[in-house]
Amino acid sequence: MEPGSFTKPPKTWRNWLIGNPLQTADAPNQTIGKLIGLAVFASDALSSTAYATQEILMILAYAGASALTYVFPISLAIVTLMVIVSISYEQTIHAYPGGGGAYIVARDNLGELPAQTAGAALLTDYILTVAVSISSGVAQITSAFPVLFPFRVEIAVGMVLFVMLINLRGVKESGTAFAIPTYFFVITMFITVGVGFFKYLTGTLGTVVNPPAFETAGLLTAVTPFLLLHAFSSGTSALTGIEAISNGITAFKEPRSKNAGITLIWMSSILATLFLGISFLVSPIHAVPSESETVISQLARTVFDGQGPLYLALISGTAVILIMAANTAFADFPRLSALHAGDGFLPRQMTFRGSRLVYSRGIITLAAVSSMLIIIFQASVTRLIPLYAIGVFLSFSLSQAGMALRWWKSGHLKDGEQIVEPGSIVTHDEKWLGKLFINGFGSLCTFVVMVVFGITKFKDGAWIIIILIPVLVTIFFSIHHHYKNLAKKLSLQNYHSTTIKRHRVIVLIAGVHRGSLAALSYARTLSEDVTSVHVSTDPVESKKVKEKWELYGEGTRLVILDSPYRLLVEPVMDYISKLLEMRQPNEIVTVVVPQFVPKHWWENFLHNQTALMLRMGFIFKPGLVIIEVPYQV
Amino acid sequence: MEPGSFTKPPKTWRNWLIGNPLQTADAPNQTIGKLIGLAVFASDALSSTAYATQEILMILAYAGASALTYVFPISLAIVTLMVIVSISYEQTIHAYPGGGGAYIVARDNLGELPAQTAGAALLTDYILTVAVSISSGVAQITSAFPVLFPFRVEIAVGMVLFVMLINLRGVKESGTAFAIPTYFFVITMFITVGVGFFKYLTGTLGTVVNPPAFETAGLLTAVTPFLLLHAFSSGTSALTGIEAISNGITAFKEPRSKNAGITLIWMSSILATLFLGISFLVSPIHAVPSESETVISQLARTVFDGQGPLYLALISGTAVILIMAANTAFADFPRLSALHAGDGFLPRQMTFRGSRLVYSRGIITLAAVSSMLIIIFQASVTRLIPLYAIGVFLSFSLSQAGMALRWWKSGHLKDGEQIVEPGSIVTHDEKWLGKLFINGFGSLCTFVVMVVFGITKFKDGAWIIIILIPVLVTIFFSIHHHYKNLAKKLSLQNYHSTTIKRHRVIVLIAGVHRGSLAALSYARTLSEDVTSVHVSTDPVESKKVKEKWELYGEGTRLVILDSPYRLLVEPVMDYISKLLEMRQPNEIVTVVVPQFVPKHWWENFLHNQTALMLRMGFIFKPGLVIIEVPYQV
Repeated sequence: MEPGSFTKPPKTWRNWLIGNPLQTADAPNQTIGKLIGLAVFASDALSSTAYATQEILMILAYAGASALTYVFPISLAIVTLMVIVSISYEQTIHAYPGGGGAYIVARDNLGELPAQTAGAALLTDYILTVAVSISSGVAQITSAFPVLFPFRVEIAVGMVLFVMLINLRGVKESGTAFAIPTYFFVITMFITVGVGFFKYLTGTLGTVVNPPAFETAGLLTAVTPFLLLHAFSSGTSALTGIEAISNGITAFKEPRSKNAGITLIWMSSILATLFLGISFLVSPIHAVPSESETVISQLARTVFDGQGPLYLALISGTAVILIMAANTAFADFPRLSALHAGDGFLPRQMTFRGSRLVYSRGIITLAAVSSMLIIIFQASVTRLIPLYAIGVFLSFSLSQAGMALRWWKSGHLKDGEQIVEPGSIVTHDEKWLGKLFINGFGSLCTFVVMVVFGITKFKDGAWIIIILIPVLVTIFFSIHHHYKNLAKKLSLQNYHSTTIKRHRVIVLIAGVHRGSLAALSYARTLSEDVTSVHVSTDPVESKKVKEKWELYGEGTRLVILDSPYRLLVEPVMDYISKLLEMRQPNEIVTVVVPQFVPKHWWENFLHNQTALMLRMGFIFKPGLVIIEVPYQV
Repeated sequence: MEPGSFTKPPKTWRNWLIGNPLQTADAPNQTIGKLIGLAVFASDALSSTAYATQEILMILAYAGASALTYVFPISLAIVTLMVIVSISYEQTIHAYPGGGGAYIVARDNLGELPAQTAGAALLTDYILTVAVSISSGVAQITSAFPVLFPFRVEIAVGMVLFVMLINLRGVKESGTAFAIPTYFFVITMFITVGVGFFKYLTGTLGTVVNPPAFETAGLLTAVTPFLLLHAFSSGTSALTGIEAISNGITAFKEPRSKNAGITLIWMSSILATLFLGISFLVSPIHAVPSESETVISQLARTVFDGQGPLYLALISGTAVILIMAANTAFADFPRLSALHAGDGFLPRQMTFRGSRLVYSRGIITLAAVSSMLIIIFQASVTRLIPLYAIGVFLSFSLSQAGMALRWWKSGHLKDGEQIVEPGSIVTHDEKWLGKLFINGFGSLCTFVVMVVFGITKFKDGAWIIIILIPVLVTIFFSIHHHYKNLAKKLSLQNYHSTTIKRHRVIVLIAGVHRGSLAALSYARTLSEDVTSVHVSTDPVESKKVKEKWELYGEGTRLVILDSPYRLLVEPVMDYISKLLEMRQPNEIVTVVVPQFVPKHWWENFLHNQTALMLRMGFIFKPGLVIIEVPYQV
């Protein structure tokens, strides 16, 4: 084979579906700029403006209509937390230019167990992001077209598969495909909030016409600190998705960290502005939390004086962004699982990049598991949502704790000293104490939010996640144990080459025919020491075999094993076991089994699968090799 | 290994379930006498007395109550047919002592196509016998305990599995288990008919008290010849099962033919007597065909003056015999399928006798397919019954046509001449013309019955069978073609031994470690001509492999295949294909693939299955052997 020649994948229907294969050397061309990056990684975070304010109002409603005014101060608190988390992640992006999600930060600073926990939490949450956001997008569609309601599960799974296919085409193409709807949503949302503020300042903003009924659940409670904390934690769903960019740094064009960092700042600014704007405007218009009409819809109706084209633009943009939030998970889950796999905590195959240079196995895994969730939970957002967000806050908390520890290390280094860690290099930082405070405070806040979440939503389904994450971490460590153990066993330390001194070859003979004679002549090329073995269930038949063997057996020894119980495989296994017991070190036994290769697959059912059964019976025997010698019919 | 030592099957839970294994030499002890034989082979035929009379009345009812008196003459006609068929089969049993079902008779006298058709028809019918009789037995149970109705499918499948297990224990034990209920049914039925006649002759037989309503379906029709023919063909369901003994001759003690023949005569006599008796008595008691109460129940109530212990004994005996009719099919189906398989029309594995000397694969196949039917048809007798009986009459017709032809041959032989056929020896018979007439007439009658059946029940489901039988026959012939072709290819006629002159060995190397070095040292025992091949998806990695190979490769050549599209298997397949293209005759190529053998099966998912994929890619290449060299971790 001449150098430079190599195998191109064959053209198949896959080329049409996901595009032509890309060479490994093309990888740098598959990165994206800031504008596309914002569309790819921000749709998850930005889509939360569609429901975060409403979530806060829903909780405050327990204390009656007057309590609803707390929505703005609570939103301010959430935005403060958002700023802290964003600053933390902006710092992380610069500290970890090779990708600095919670997994890497925890791994380098806190150790393997917290890292695997953070990773498991994030992977779980990405799966839920797909299930929840697609289901909620489909729910918007089925509210508009109730006739589609019975097919919601099929539509949702179909959309998961669609997003999967787009992602299998590669990050560049998926980014372009998703940029337009993301910017459409952002622009219409800004117009809504902007017009709302203009009317508010000019005194022309009215209140909601025909608002939905104000529903109170039984007795009103007082405005307790717990209620406010509960409302706060419900509203923090606005923060989900903010970590996405830190996992995806390597998808950005060089200079990666700078581009990723700027994109993060854009994203947080847009998110904070829209969220605060909405939370401010709901009070003057007297918006009411309700299951039958979203707060966004009430706001848009009031701002645009009815259900005109701008109202429709915002509502349809909202439906689309919810479906696209899934795309963020598709961008991050495969990268994160490849990181786990690279460290040996998930099957190594997850690091394999498919024909389009994306981690195709991660993409397919995400699509499969989230489709399963959608089917199990029948695409019900209400049943899926309590499982959601705990994982994100757990990973926030671990990641920021890791960063805090990193500042501690940084502060105790002398100028010019450095610690080289797998994911980054730690040097001295003048402002380490302030940064440590920010990260430590952020870690504490997100931890508290997670605990409140876990407690208030435990019965509704959060328990599933609280059980699932330790289970996943255990699985990750068993996989890791396997790879570590394998590497130790395969290591060439203290390796001494051994030559095989004796090679016994056994040929299994069901009858004397061209197939078994082909196997015999193959066996005779392997070794001088060839024995043929025939299992006899019928004395007449075996006498014939013996006679024919004398003619055709080329002088090799024939052993006939009597089988009065009509067993076929077991007598051979017994015979070979006895040989193996007598085996010297440096001796090897090979069993040659003639195997017909029929023209059609179904014809295999017409033959005994002796080789297969021997292989299954002998899988744990050292010093034994089983060979099927094919005979084409 | 010393002579006389052989492998005993290991003790497992199977011994407890189906008994200890039996040696092949035990086979003659596993035969049965006439009393047990009647129980094993007659339950199918005898159970038809439970419904045959009613089936006739149901059709006659279309012409009003007065037409019901035709039941006895029609029954007489059916019994005449029964006598003809019985005589035919009694003659067959003596002509074919090795088993003489429709399949063998048709094969020896009519040729392969009619034989396979008869066999396919019978096999189909045995499957339906199990499904119909178990379902109808369960229907009796659920009529008594309506609370069990929702579980009828589960109960029916459970009973199929129970009958299967009993049959896997062996024909002797299953016969003993089923003899008691069969004789219980026969005796209670005889008491019922006997007491009925006694009361009739003494003038004390009344009429049915509170008979079910006489239901007429729309307008009454006249008593046309077609109606009578229809009623006749419906009543011929009494004949199903009469062929059972002829297929099962080898299960009888020596002298086989005599024992089997006598059993057949007993069975036919019992069947004819009970059937005629019942058909005679229904008129004087004014029994009414009805869906809500069976004719048997009306008769028993009238004879025994109410629902006393004898009434209950008959009804429960009827339920049990219906379930046991399945046992006849379990006795015959495996034997018949073993005959087909022995002639190469079904997978040869069907001829393999299991640990208890029964054709266990046939038994399991029958249980599986009939359970599937029960599940598909939800254990509904009404939906299953139109599929039933066509097959039996088709095989009757073919079998008797074959016998007629045999008498023709016999009549044209000179005294002392003989024709040796696979299943029997034909000699001159003085009475050949009379016997030819009986068989020819029987064949015609059963053929007409089959056609009437097919036409009147076509829409209800008979079409399934009319399509299925040719499909099965086609499958049988494709299997036969495979085996014939294989035998031709494997035949040693004109065989010249060829010695392999060159043996190239390729070792696939993913990395340099103990696993790949073990494969290398194995490969070096096979041939002098060893090349190692490494697929490179990462230049850094393959440089390392190259360097390590210089240290550990024992001087063997290393070929590195560049794979810029990150393919693993395809470059190897390309490389090997090129080698094979250049291959000389008498040259063979062996690919050695190192294979980890992990401790736990799930750990296989953590590795690429390269050997498996190569094997699948190369299954059709001549001159290539693929070897996995296991490396135990």
